Amino acid sequence: MDQTYGHRDRARGIPANVAWLAEEIGELAQALRKGDQDQQLQEFGDVLAWTASLANLAGLSLEEALSRYRNGCPRCSKRPCQCP
Amino acid sequence: MDQTYGHRDRARGIPANVAWLAEEIGELAQALRKGDQDQQLQEFGDVLAWTASLANLAGLSLEEALSRYRNGCPRCSKRPCQCP
Repeated sequence: MDQTYGHRDRARGIPANVAWLAEEIGELAQALRKGDQDQQLQEFGDVLAWTASLANLAGLSLEEALSRYRNGCPRCSKRPCQCP
Repeated sequence: MDQTYGHRDRARGIPANVAWLAEEIGELAQALRKGDQDQQLQEFGDVLAWTASLANLAGLSLEEALSRYRNGCPRCSKRPCQCP
């Protein structure tokens, strides 16, 4: 993702990338409400792409971010989650 | 993710999960503006977790959703992206 969009993401900066991600979340919400599966799949991909762009800009790894969930819920440590 | 949260996600339904994802996007935006790296990493993980929950509810694969980006930009087919 960085090879494809990194040059534009860095020129745009974090605040503008946050705004784009918010826009994509809106498009995903709309696709889930009234779109077909192809549209939903496209919007999920776009949300992940912008999330990855933001993580690259912030110098963070999405793999590391997700690792908290590897052994069940990070809050109650159970799978399935037993949080109140 | 489905094993950890699937039972709650299904009980909640898609619209409520969209609302939770929107909330997490807000928390990520705040962490990127004024949080430290640990907080940002946690919020990235939460955004991915809720995105995965929604994909599970919609019966869609995030791997498939991301595959559009595998060979560069899905719009211009270039890496780096050359879209106008």
